[in-house]
Formats: sequence, C-alpha cells, structure tokens
Amino acid sequence: MIYFDNASTTQISGRALKVYNEISKTCFYNSSSLHKGGVLAKTKLEKARQDILNCINGQVGDRLIFCSGATEANNMALFGLTRKNQSILVSVGEHPSVYNTAMSLLQRGNEVDFVKLNSEGTVDIDDFTQKICNKKYDLVSIMLTNNETGAINDIRSLCEIAKRANPQCVFHSDCVQAFCKIDVLVDNLGIDSISLSAHKINGPKGIGALYVKKRVGFNPIVYGGGQENNLRSGTENLPAICAFAEAAIEKCEVLKSNFENAARIRETILRRFDDKGFEYEVNGSKRGSPYVLSISLDGVKGEVLVHKLEMDDIYIGTGSACSSKSSDNRILSAMSKEKGKILGNIRLSFSANNTIDEAEIVAEKIIQYATELRNL
Amino acid sequence: MIYFDNASTTQISGRALKVYNEISKTCFYNSSSLHKGGVLAKTKLEKARQDILNCINGQVGDRLIFCSGATEANNMALFGLTRKNQSILVSVGEHPSVYNTAMSLLQRGNEVDFVKLNSEGTVDIDDFTQKICNKKYDLVSIMLTNNETGAINDIRSLCEIAKRANPQCVFHSDCVQAFCKIDVLVDNLGIDSISLSAHKINGPKGIGALYVKKRVGFNPIVYGGGQENNLRSGTENLPAICAFAEAAIEKCEVLKSNFENAARIRETILRRFDDKGFEYEVNGSKRGSPYVLSISLDGVKGEVLVHKLEMDDIYIGTGSACSSKSSDNRILSAMSKEKGKILGNIRLSFSANNTIDEAEIVAEKIIQYATELRNL
Repeated sequence: MIYFDNASTTQISGRALKVYNEISKTCFYNSSSLHKGGVLAKTKLEKARQDILNCINGQVGDRLIFCSGATEANNMALFGLTRKNQSILVSVGEHPSVYNTAMSLLQRGNEVDFVKLNSEGTVDIDDFTQKICNKKYDLVSIMLTNNETGAINDIRSLCEIAKRANPQCVFHSDCVQAFCKIDVLVDNLGIDSISLSAHKINGPKGIGALYVKKRVGFNPIVYGGGQENNLRSGTENLPAICAFAEAAIEKCEVLKSNFENAARIRETILRRFDDKGFEYEVNGSKRGSPYVLSISLDGVKGEVLVHKLEMDDIYIGTGSACSSKSSDNRILSAMSKEKGKILGNIRLSFSANNTIDEAEIVAEKIIQYATELRNL
Repeated sequence: MIYFDNASTTQISGRALKVYNEISKTCFYNSSSLHKGGVLAKTKLEKARQDILNCINGQVGDRLIFCSGATEANNMALFGLTRKNQSILVSVGEHPSVYNTAMSLLQRGNEVDFVKLNSEGTVDIDDFTQKICNKKYDLVSIMLTNNETGAINDIRSLCEIAKRANPQCVFHSDCVQAFCKIDVLVDNLGIDSISLSAHKINGPKGIGALYVKKRVGFNPIVYGGGQENNLRSGTENLPAICAFAEAAIEKCEVLKSNFENAARIRETILRRFDDKGFEYEVNGSKRGSPYVLSISLDGVKGEVLVHKLEMDDIYIGTGSACSSKSSDNRILSAMSKEKGKILGNIRLSFSANNTIDEAEIVAEKIIQYATELRNL
C-alpha cells in the first residue's frame, strides 16, 4: 500500500500509539479528581501542554487549550476571540472549519470580509492591505499552509500589516498543515492564536489545541466542569493528549530531514512527469509546502484517477477530504482555475514514512492511467 | 489498587483498547476520503453508530451524532435544540455541562428556569409539574441518573408531563451515568435527545454522542467540513468511535449481572458500616443507581478522607470530579443538606471490575480513618 493522502489524515506513529496505550493502562484517571491518581494525571497533562508549547516557542503565560481537534480549535478561535458585532477578515482559501464558521458569524450579524487569493494560492497582498486599511478589523484569520495546495502565506508580514492598521486586532492562523512540517514559532510570527491538530502529524485522532497568547481575551464555546482553566470544559482526553505531545516531539526532532525527504518525493514525481513529457499543471507556488502536491490534469477526472490508483493500493486525494464530496472547489476557483483544471485535480500529500521508491511508482501509475483516460 | 471513582472516569477495557489499536493500525483513513480506505472507514463508522443505536433501541431515521464527549453532547443539545428567545427548563441537579450551558443561555437572553430537587436527589415532581403548567417550555433537560448521588429520575413520567403540557416541547436527558448501567431505551423513555459518554463505560476518553430522534430539528454548534451529516464537523475519531461501540456492546451484554454486582458491592459496604455501628448518612434514594454510593460523615472532611485512603492505594471521590475543586456543592445543597454533611461527603462509584473483597477492605478503611479523624 502506498499512502499519499497524509494531508487528509495520517497513521498514528508507533511511539505515539505506545504512549496512548501506556497512559490508558497506567494513568486513566480524571485529572480533576482529588486523589493522587488525579494529581498524577494532572501532572502528565501539564507536561504534555508544555512539550507542545515548547515546539512552537510558546512564552510564559501563553495558553494552549486542548480540544477535540483543529475544527473545534478554529471554531473556538473565531467564536471565542470575537464579540458581538465585531468585524472579521478571513481569506477565501481557508479550511471549511474557518470559512464556514466565518459564514455563520456573518449570519449572526458580524461583519465578515473575505480576502482574495492570487493564482499561486496565497493571500493577495494588495487586496489584503486594501481591506485592512479601509476597515478596522477585530479579528483576522489567515492559514499558514493551505491544505489543498500547500501554498504558504507570509503570516509574519500579514500580521504586521494588520497590527499596524489596528494594534488591537487579534490575528489567528490555522497552522494545521504547517505544524511539525515547517517552523511554526509563535513569537517569530507575532500572532495571537493558532490551531493545531494531532492526526495530521502521526498523532491520534480526536485531539487538537488552540494556542492563545497571554493577555488575549478568550471566551469558551463549550461549558461544563471548567476544565482547561475554564476555557474548554470536558474530561481531558489524557491518553490522546500525551500521544499528541509525543508525536509533536517526534516530528520536531527531525523537522528538517523530514522536510527534505518530502521535497525529494515531490521533486521525484515532477521530474518523472517531465522526463516522460507528461502534461500537468501544479496548483500552488514553488515556494509552497513540499508535503502537498496539487496538480491538475487536462482530460482526466480526478475522482476517476483516485479509483484507478486504489486498485493498485495507492491512496491519493482530490482537493481535500473535507471538500471531496462537494461538486465545486472553493480554493482552486479562488485561484482562477478553470472548470477542467478543477475536475482534473488530484492531491498527493506526504509524510515522513513515504519513500522515493513510492514516488516513482505513483508517478508511473499516474502517467499510465491518465494517458489511458485521455486516450478513451 | 482499589478504584472506586468510576463515576469520574473508568479504565478502558481490554476489548475496547484492542479495537482502538486495530483501527489505528489497519483503518486509520479519513472517512471523507474518496479512495477505498475512506470507504472502509465510513463503513466501520456507520457500523459503530448502528451498534450504539441498537443498545438504546434507536429507531430507523434516528440520529446518533458522534462528538468529543458528553460535555460537548450536552452543549450540542442545549444550544442545538433551541432557538433564540426560547424557554428552557432544567433541574438544579444537572451536571455542569447542562447547568452551566443553561446559565450561558440565560445570559444570552433565553428564559431559563430551574426545577428543584427533593431530599432524595431526584426532581421535585410538584415543582416540575407546576412549572410545566405555568409556562410553555421549548426544551426540558433532566438527567436520568445523577452523577453525584446516583438518584434516578423517572424520565418517562417527566417526559409525559412535559409533552402533555406542550406537545412541541423537546425533551433532552443526560444519560451519561445511566447508559450501560440501567436500561436506556429511547423508545420506552419517549424522549427526543440523550447524551452518552464512552469513558464512563470503560470506553476511551474523548468520545461521546448525542442521540437525536428523527424529525427533531437540530442545528450544529461546530462548523467545518460537514462530517456527521452536517451536524458535527471535524474528522471522525474512528479508533475511539469503534472502541466506544465495543465498550457499549461489552457492557450491554452483561448489564443485568453487572448491575447485581454493583448492588452487592454497595450493600456490602453499607452492611459493614451497620455491623460496626458506624455513623453515616446516604445521600440519595434507595431506588437509585447501585453504581454510586454518596455518603456524608459527620465530623470528617471528605477531602481529608480521600487523601487518607489514597495512602492505601484506594481511590474514591468527593462529590463529582467536575465539581471537586469548588468550595460549594450545588447538588447536595439542592437536597437541603447542611454544611457539615456537604463537607463530610464522599462518593464511592463502582464498575464491573470491582469485587466484594474490595468493598469489604474499603468499608473497613473508611471506618478506621473516619473514627481516627472524629477522635482527633
């Protein structure tokens, strides 16, 4: 089996699964319990929190709020960092968990504007600057790495522009596809809030976190027993939290070599295409994440190619899993891709487990099946 | 180690953990992916959903929405089953995930009323009937088994009263402490919505579900990729969902014998107290759940006793874990318990793993330490 759908989800690593099992067996306690089991659980919880904060250069006083995943974290950011009648700016290229939450805020009466993408899939700087200068936004939410194209936004610059126009502006960034793949250092980016997911970095499913910088006001969206310092109620999923931290440590240790491995895989596929004179178009920028390769193939339906490849136990995606069942593609449309390119879109996404050999096999198979389909 | 804090959380069973590991290794795919890995994941997801629906006698068309746990499920119920300006009735004995969510709705402008408890810890029927007849409530939320006392509400009768007064009234019940311990059959109870948690039934943490009867209107509270039939976005936590279903099946198979085991454990402790002439007061009803034994000890601080017992590796609770750090106890106060009884409260809660021998040891230790503390 060759799995090139890692932007959709990844397999939990042996190390992370081992931690999940260990905690499940030896420290299954409720960290709110008064007895020493609860105290031990609480200690492990805070250790995991600090481990992840260390991966992003979190500073003393900064908060990391564990929740059920990045979808909830992005909902927490948009709902929890804004108040009634505040104005919000997001890009049209955001993940549905930001985009659809912004749409919901719009329906609730908030002012919500959408900044355009350029043809490379990053935020259109001119449009961004113009919007920021024309209106005082209370919250800006721009993703770091795009999940469909791998396009990387210059968050540091965007944040500077936003804060120059309105120093009170809160800047949130969905960092799900960037975390543990490129440096995500909150102090360097200058931002207020980021969302993280474990299952995109070979951690467990059902766990994520919202980072919120110290002194940035945040209101919970889930009410209950007051866990997570009253910011996210619900018994903490300690086995998954500790496994999340383990996965993050595991990936951060070898971030650079994993990055180079992903880049070689991506290059291998494109070189093979070029060597064979195979026609394709890359969606996104050359300066994007090497972990994602979005291409469009004329005369081929992405979905058909996915099903051809699965017969050889090769798993790839079209667009994102979250948008796979939608007939339209918001992100490629925003990049001004024409209908044929959108229908002919496939997404290959890599992890540290993937190899050059796999890249060569998949490239060959794509050429073979796409050529067959084009000749039909 | 003797663990009598199972109402707080339980250890995942061997069967459930095995399923978690199997799915994590062999079916880690995103169930929204188009390839056959995604299709396989989707099949397993729907199988798990049906397995749990079977445990509660769910009917064709009924929905079971997976989410991160019962806290989120109760938030989903209160926020998702109501609209702006609707009126809500909850009991003062509800879990914080219902009570605090109701308080938040009150702050948002909803009319929220609180029905009293009687001295046995169940809903005061006279107060309930009076309130229901005096106002048209859109949502009523009353728990089945109370987490602190084990008191069991007669949900079927309460639901009948509520629907007689207003047939359009939606009736939700937090069934976390009842599920897999007593029969929780939605058709028999006649209710519209219930919340369930996996980690209270020896399933994994971080997973729960909201059952919503067919044709009952429900709006999501988390927005994103449209998973769970557009009712709860976020990549499904398939390993935990399948382990949740496994735990539910495991428990439902032997519900009756587990119930009898819990009852014997509870009786053993109380008999030992009586045999030794030990003074205590049970909080709750004799017709309550045998899985919870809440007692108050005059002249003893519950917290001190917890720490005495932990030295012998005996883990018990005070009140609930969710309220353990609060200086007050809302539920015991609502039962008109005086301050001394509240401070002297401990909660022993059992699982199928507990034994009569453990009950005898714990009863002896409680008598010993409480007597020492009283003699100080």
